[in-house]
Amino acid sequence: MQREVLLALLRAYKSGESTEAELADRLTSLPFEDVGFARIDHHRSLRSGMPEAIYAEGKTPDQVATIFARLAVTGVPVLATRATEAHAAATQAVTPSATYHRLARCITLAATDGREQRDGHIAVVCAGTSDLPVAEEAALTAELYGAAVTRVTDVGVAGLHRLLAQVPVLRTADVVIACAGMEGALPSVIGGLVASPVIAVPTSVGYGASLGGIAALLGMLNSCSPNIAVVNIDNGFGAGYLACLIARQAK
Amino acid sequence: MQREVLLALLRAYKSGESTEAELADRLTSLPFEDVGFARIDHHRSLRSGMPEAIYAEGKTPDQVATIFARLAVTGVPVLATRATEAHAAATQAVTPSATYHRLARCITLAATDGREQRDGHIAVVCAGTSDLPVAEEAALTAELYGAAVTRVTDVGVAGLHRLLAQVPVLRTADVVIACAGMEGALPSVIGGLVASPVIAVPTSVGYGASLGGIAALLGMLNSCSPNIAVVNIDNGFGAGYLACLIARQAK
Amino acid sequence: MQREVLLALLRAYKSGESTEAELADRLTSLPFEDVGFARIDHHRSLRSGMPEAIYAEGKTPDQVATIFARLAVTGVPVLATRATEAHAAATQAVTPSATYHRLARCITLAATDGREQRDGHIAVVCAGTSDLPVAEEAALTAELYGAAVTRVTDVGVAGLHRLLAQVPVLRTADVVIACAGMEGALPSVIGGLVASPVIAVPTSVGYGASLGGIAALLGMLNSCSPNIAVVNIDNGFGAGYLACLIARQAK
Amino acid sequence: MQREVLLALLRAYKSGESTEAELADRLTSLPFEDVGFARIDHHRSLRSGMPEAIYAEGKTPDQVATIFARLAVTGVPVLATRATEAHAAATQAVTPSATYHRLARCITLAATDGREQRDGHIAVVCAGTSDLPVAEEAALTAELYGAAVTRVTDVGVAGLHRLLAQVPVLRTADVVIACAGMEGALPSVIGGLVASPVIAVPTSVGYGASLGGIAALLGMLNSCSPNIAVVNIDNGFGAGYLACLIARQAK
Amino acid sequence: MQREVLLALLRAYKSGESTEAELADRLTSLPFEDVGFARIDHHRSLRSGMPEAIYAEGKTPDQVATIFARLAVTGVPVLATRATEAHAAATQAVTPSATYHRLARCITLAATDGREQRDGHIAVVCAGTSDLPVAEEAALTAELYGAAVTRVTDVGVAGLHRLLAQVPVLRTADVVIACAGMEGALPSVIGGLVASPVIAVPTSVGYGASLGGIAALLGMLNSCSPNIAVVNIDNGFGAGYLACLIARQAK
Amino acid sequence: MQREVLLALLRAYKSGESTEAELADRLTSLPFEDVGFARIDHHRSLRSGMPEAIYAEGKTPDQVATIFARLAVTGVPVLATRATEAHAAATQAVTPSATYHRLARCITLAATDGREQRDGHIAVVCAGTSDLPVAEEAALTAELYGAAVTRVTDVGVAGLHRLLAQVPVLRTADVVIACAGMEGALPSVIGGLVASPVIAVPTSVGYGASLGGIAALLGMLNSCSPNIAVVNIDNGFGAGYLACLIARQAK
Amino acid sequence: MQREVLLALLRAYKSGESTEAELADRLTSLPFEDVGFARIDHHRSLRSGMPEAIYAEGKTPDQVATIFARLAVTGVPVLATRATEAHAAATQAVTPSATYHRLARCITLAATDGREQRDGHIAVVCAGTSDLPVAEEAALTAELYGAAVTRVTDVGVAGLHRLLAQVPVLRTADVVIACAGMEGALPSVIGGLVASPVIAVPTSVGYGASLGGIAALLGMLNSCSPNIAVVNIDNGFGAGYLACLIARQAK
Amino acid sequence: MQREVLLALLRAYKSGESTEAELADRLTSLPFEDVGFARIDHHRSLRSGMPEAIYAEGKTPDQVATIFARLAVTGVPVLATRATEAHAAATQAVTPSATYHRLARCITLAATDGREQRDGHIAVVCAGTSDLPVAEEAALTAELYGAAVTRVTDVGVAGLHRLLAQVPVLRTADVVIACAGMEGALPSVIGGLVASPVIAVPTSVGYGASLGGIAALLGMLNSCSPNIAVVNIDNGFGAGYLACLIARQAK
Repeated sequence: MQREVLLALLRAYKSGESTEAELADRLTSLPFEDVGFARIDHHRSLRSGMPEAIYAEGKTPDQVATIFARLAVTGVPVLATRATEAHAAATQAVTPSATYHRLARCITLAATDGREQRDGHIAVVCAGTSDLPVAEEAALTAELYGAAVTRVTDVGVAGLHRLLAQVPVLRTADVVIACAGMEGALPSVIGGLVASPVIAVPTSVGYGASLGGIAALLGMLNSCSPNIAVVNIDNGFGAGYLACLIARQAK
Repeated sequence: MQREVLLALLRAYKSGESTEAELADRLTSLPFEDVGFARIDHHRSLRSGMPEAIYAEGKTPDQVATIFARLAVTGVPVLATRATEAHAAATQAVTPSATYHRLARCITLAATDGREQRDGHIAVVCAGTSDLPVAEEAALTAELYGAAVTRVTDVGVAGLHRLLAQVPVLRTADVVIACAGMEGALPSVIGGLVASPVIAVPTSVGYGASLGGIAALLGMLNSCSPNIAVVNIDNGFGAGYLACLIARQAK
Repeated sequence: MQREVLLALLRAYKSGESTEAELADRLTSLPFEDVGFARIDHHRSLRSGMPEAIYAEGKTPDQVATIFARLAVTGVPVLATRATEAHAAATQAVTPSATYHRLARCITLAATDGREQRDGHIAVVCAGTSDLPVAEEAALTAELYGAAVTRVTDVGVAGLHRLLAQVPVLRTADVVIACAGMEGALPSVIGGLVASPVIAVPTSVGYGASLGGIAALLGMLNSCSPNIAVVNIDNGFGAGYLACLIARQAK
Repeated sequence: MQREVLLALLRAYKSGESTEAELADRLTSLPFEDVGFARIDHHRSLRSGMPEAIYAEGKTPDQVATIFARLAVTGVPVLATRATEAHAAATQAVTPSATYHRLARCITLAATDGREQRDGHIAVVCAGTSDLPVAEEAALTAELYGAAVTRVTDVGVAGLHRLLAQVPVLRTADVVIACAGMEGALPSVIGGLVASPVIAVPTSVGYGASLGGIAALLGMLNSCSPNIAVVNIDNGFGAGYLACLIARQAK
Repeated sequence: MQREVLLALLRAYKSGESTEAELADRLTSLPFEDVGFARIDHHRSLRSGMPEAIYAEGKTPDQVATIFARLAVTGVPVLATRATEAHAAATQAVTPSATYHRLARCITLAATDGREQRDGHIAVVCAGTSDLPVAEEAALTAELYGAAVTRVTDVGVAGLHRLLAQVPVLRTADVVIACAGMEGALPSVIGGLVASPVIAVPTSVGYGASLGGIAALLGMLNSCSPNIAVVNIDNGFGAGYLACLIARQAK
Repeated sequence: MQREVLLALLRAYKSGESTEAELADRLTSLPFEDVGFARIDHHRSLRSGMPEAIYAEGKTPDQVATIFARLAVTGVPVLATRATEAHAAATQAVTPSATYHRLARCITLAATDGREQRDGHIAVVCAGTSDLPVAEEAALTAELYGAAVTRVTDVGVAGLHRLLAQVPVLRTADVVIACAGMEGALPSVIGGLVASPVIAVPTSVGYGASLGGIAALLGMLNSCSPNIAVVNIDNGFGAGYLACLIARQAK
Repeated sequence: MQREVLLALLRAYKSGESTEAELADRLTSLPFEDVGFARIDHHRSLRSGMPEAIYAEGKTPDQVATIFARLAVTGVPVLATRATEAHAAATQAVTPSATYHRLARCITLAATDGREQRDGHIAVVCAGTSDLPVAEEAALTAELYGAAVTRVTDVGVAGLHRLLAQVPVLRTADVVIACAGMEGALPSVIGGLVASPVIAVPTSVGYGASLGGIAALLGMLNSCSPNIAVVNIDNGFGAGYLACLIARQAK
Repeated sequence: MQREVLLALLRAYKSGESTEAELADRLTSLPFEDVGFARIDHHRSLRSGMPEAIYAEGKTPDQVATIFARLAVTGVPVLATRATEAHAAATQAVTPSATYHRLARCITLAATDGREQRDGHIAVVCAGTSDLPVAEEAALTAELYGAAVTRVTDVGVAGLHRLLAQVPVLRTADVVIACAGMEGALPSVIGGLVASPVIAVPTSVGYGASLGGIAALLGMLNSCSPNIAVVNIDNGFGAGYLACLIARQAK
């Protein structure tokens, strides 16, 4: 409810236009957001600067383009995930400054409301090249919402020396996002090597008993390292968003 | 490797006691931790002040008591989870200052190395009274490792007004831990009401199609709220530990 | 068995054309529906006015068109679900007054037997735009079979204020149908806000650990709200049909 | 919020004790239940007369006895499910008029607020004697909350004539609750024989591939009969509660 | 319906005591078993001589003893499966001629209605000694209902020569029942060695990835041999019963 | 081993060409089939007249055509299942007398070795039209291998009167094959209505929680009727083959 | 078949006591083991010196003791796994020289037939102390059957430096057995560090989403390291046996 | 770290160019592989001669061609698995001497570094023609990396005589690889017939309850034969690689 509306109600009551009972009834039966709830939500949006992204899968190119444009005018950073070339073409026809990231399947538009700060530092790590789309979705999300991101790729646990060589870099990050398919052991190993929170992203990379990412998901949930939490399979966006929230606190 | 050992090797080489080839061989074949790795690990322990807890389930009372005592002398906070009365009795016989928390099934000993600061603020929320043991494990863990904890209980989504009444409190927390069994919807709802990171803890509370907590776990992994990550079923310790890491960054 | 056939048998017996033993044998060995069973079934159809729908998936356009036309002549409301454009084209070629609903993938034909009453009021709620096809299938079904339907869309639990704003409307419904994919928490939350029965429809919307709707299904089955029952994943038709039966009782 | 509190606020504002801005702030920041939400909830309770039951499993006898007594004084019907002999003994020590139903594992106390009407008629059907505890839990729940209940037992689909003999009785019910374990086919068959809504309750009766009731649950969810909805495995209470809500509408 | 009742109705009609319309109404509305249905069921019992067994699990000793005694007086063979020592003691107290088979956990009473023929020949094969209880349940069932049974034990596929040595015996059987846990490969191998039908009984013998018999069940369902069908895990009774039906046809 | 080879060995020994030890060694080390095993297998084929079918799925049209032709010359009945139009075209190019059954996806060629007898009578029942391809595969298999087949379609349990009307026919069959998807309750109901063996075939018909036929499969495995055994999902061929074996015994 | 029996047959033929046709018939119809099959099996036992172990679970103490004693007299190494104290007591009463290993739950008796060689070198590695019973079962099995075993414990992947410190030892082994519960990542990491075959043993250690070892099993099956194969959950015996076979080849 | 780099560091220190402290710092902070780790990895590669293969699935033809070429110049044997025709065309355009194996979906290039020895003998066995692609992948892998391979095909357990005829061949192998889909019983049977290690490869061949190879996988994990270990579904490469490692030890 616009505060003005509320004030108008109060004034009408004070002036005698409406009775006490009428106002009491009106106030207790207002739709909830009218009594300030929406404002709170707005406050959240203002504080975090992180509007929800557009999940393009299952939407038509036109739908994505329309929603994208509507958000673009507000000046916030805009992000569409799981976007195809067709989604991108339709979006860029309406919002020419939007960028399509083929590998990550994302369309982005940087914030235009002046913000530019780098809120914290996130390392996005992945095990194999097949995990790159998910890792890139995470990295782009984090960057768009204001974090500095370091990408570390091709450091699967079966070739441990490559991972160990990157430990110094990982230790400089406020949060580590670790993406892995197959057996999904990467977050466990990283969790033991760094002191920061690790967000584990199982990917659907694999075949047979990988069960579309369930094996990796279960592995990550059962990690012996206590500094790990897990998001849904292939949910790079969620990992990037959450990491950003955490890293921002580190400032 | 103790730095002194390394220096001794270098001096022996410079003095001619050992040849260049001998030193090269020695350096490349050293066990890994000898080249500084263990030191790094120590550094991590120092920085986080959060040693791993003792998982008492499957250990004898004597084993728990012994490990507990060994850690107690170091001055760090000590925690044993999934501890029975028998574990507690054996532990308190050796370490009388240890406290047993029946509901949480935890044995704790506060840090004696002088630290006392409250690093960040964590809200631990749970849906029903059956979730209390897991929630308490999370809360005790977080408190022991230095966070201020607010407990919010009995706010299941089927009686939404109770949860909504607690929103102002939840919004003051740096991190929210949400524990729920059954359909596990609590973290999703909270995730939409706060701007901070939410750690979701599925519990094994339920029957029939709850599948020992799997239903709650799946629900949490599929949350529409992007500020949520999930730990293993009933893993209150992990949630408390991770929340503490994140909240500390908020300082 | 046509009653005339039965009467003929009885008369033949009374007139002596057949013996007592012959009639007894005949009566006890008649196919079951012959002894009135089919009539009962007919009675059910008359009472509920709700013939089963045509499930178009896996049927050819010609098959659907033929069955549709055969039902159309009886005057009852006709419904084909999971219908493609091709099904619709074939059906409309034979029954031009049939309507195709693209979003709901349904072909409908209103009853022509004079009925018009609105039997009860059903609210059909869904969480996201991806759930709309299922929700629309439910809404169309309920309308076709005689209920007044209110559609409430885009009220996912992660943005609770939107749902809360609709509570007054939901409370006016005799039955609420709540469709949701992902974590499937919507019915639980609604169940706590209304006093009427809630039919929960899990949808296959989601990815990864949503397991094609299994996560939402399990969540709904484990709801803490006691006024909820669940139908199969994506079964909008079943929900609409059942809600209609219940709402009719409310008249 | 008590209406009086609200009125007091309004009067203070009108009298000039508080400013317009102060009142606006107060109103928009009140905990949610304060703005009438709890009243709504209360209204729901009044309208349905169906408070939630006490789920005794996992609670101590003392806890159950205490909660039971607290509810008893309000005059509403009181119900504790999954109650053991020990729960019953403790409860009856405090509330002597409570009744323990061994087979159903329920403790009940009839409403003392004068209500006595029989709101609708529910048939509770079960396949085998092993399903009786769940069926009885459903029947007792429905009776306690005001419905007339007909029990039909031992009518499994493998001996169809027994079920068919009960069809006339089933057809008089406003709602049918069908409980079955093993293959769970009973609701499907009944669904085709009656025109009323059928609430299907899978039970955990069975062994091997029954998977603790999952086989029956899946069977019921996949029923060809469109007048069926399903509750959790062994959830007799939920079925009785929901059936009662539906049957009441039939009045 | 007793035929006499039917005849009485017919006579009353012929004599004019009741009208044609009355009789027609009566006949079409009779409960189903009244119009001969129960007779059919009785006929089935007579023809197969195979009444259903008593599933003792979950029944009290008294209940089993009572049902057992009631069946015993009819002269048919009586069988209680999954019976404990306590069930047996109670049963034998009432029916002293009953026999308890500890390994098979069965109580049996041979038919006393004079039948004695051996209807066909069944081979009951099992892989390991742990499968013996299930195999014995199958064998006892088949014997009790009239078949000649050959037991072949300890012929797991990992020691193939033992199985091959028994092939000549297996080839003399009209039906083979093959019980196996673990990988459940026995029926497949036997299926390729004999020309008769093979009933496969997965057992819950195993650990870890045997998943309580699911692994064996899946193996048997996927058998390459086309002469195999499968019953539920540990369902020795069902296998014996069905084998008996098939073997009887072979006479 | 060709008998001639064996005889040659024996003669060489008797004539002194080889020693007793040489012959003994040779006989004990012969490949197994050489010592008569293949003959036994041949015997099985002769006795049952039921060669294995060609599973066309995953084979090229040419491969199917070639195998089909090779079997055709032997005079036995030939059957290819899961065959596409392309498989059929290639097969008929080589074997013009082969028939393609589109609905059942089978290619058949009747036996040309003179056999014509109808060995027993099999009823093939299915619940819905979507189950027809599986049912037809079963029926064609049984007919091809020599049984008389009665097809009973569209008798799902949700419209029980249609099934009950067919009971007299079902009772004349030596074996009943019951195919059903969705909840898979048909075999249970039929099992209680007939005294003969019932082979249950779960089909993959359904959606959502039908899990590709797993729900129907579990339902059938948990049937209360003891005269039922189950084959793999969609395995019409196996059911037809096994039914044929059983029905043949009935002659 | 005893060779003497075969020779007698041959002599009878040569002497004219039996005809050529009679002998040919006899030879082709002999039970399989009679033609030398059992001898082959014996040969396998002789060559590997590795008789199967006694799986004590589900056997009575007396049964284990009896089988143990019967094997002991043959001089081969004897092993009973999953043995309780009671099994051990009964066994040692009969075979006093048998040793009970409490942690590994094994009863062993060293070979008394003179063998003593150490056939190859096996490293048995485990992640946590809870995995020790399984690891010890593997180690004892390997030692009993002749391998030299190095035990490496407490080297979970979350504390990588401990594992890395053991790499030089692991590289000296012919085969590595890696036991782990929880996320089961240990074999993957080891597989990348050594060049020898790695046998992965998932253990049932864990809780919640570990699903009794299924999570670890899936992780191991999906390992990126190509030098890994997996045995059943908790199957220490199988791993030890197989490793022994492989290590022996390395000699 | 190149040894030369290390030596240069040492010389600079000895010559006084760098101080003792500088060198010590440099050595302890080097990325891990710099201190010899990479060398170890290189050593492994040299010793085993078995570089990892290229997993072509999910890679573009250009990517595969590029990686293939890069490996080809090193002289080691090169292998790309899961390769399509397009992958092959692109690869052969760059590396003309590469061979495409259509059935196995592999591209290979023999080692050009002079090695030619046949290290051990591997038998690759499969049950049906549908398993051939996986079996061929295993066989090609083993051959490419230096083993002699015997292929044994079409020896499913349902036609046991064909398998038994191949036992003498199987017994000559150092390792047996057994590939099977459906019920996956082949490895168990072979495991009982040979004394060597058996690597079991479940394939995704099957339908319905084969669950994409899970049934075969579970069967193999539960094998009664103790000389079996299992790799992932369809993982022919892993089986060939591991078998090669084991067979090499046998030399």
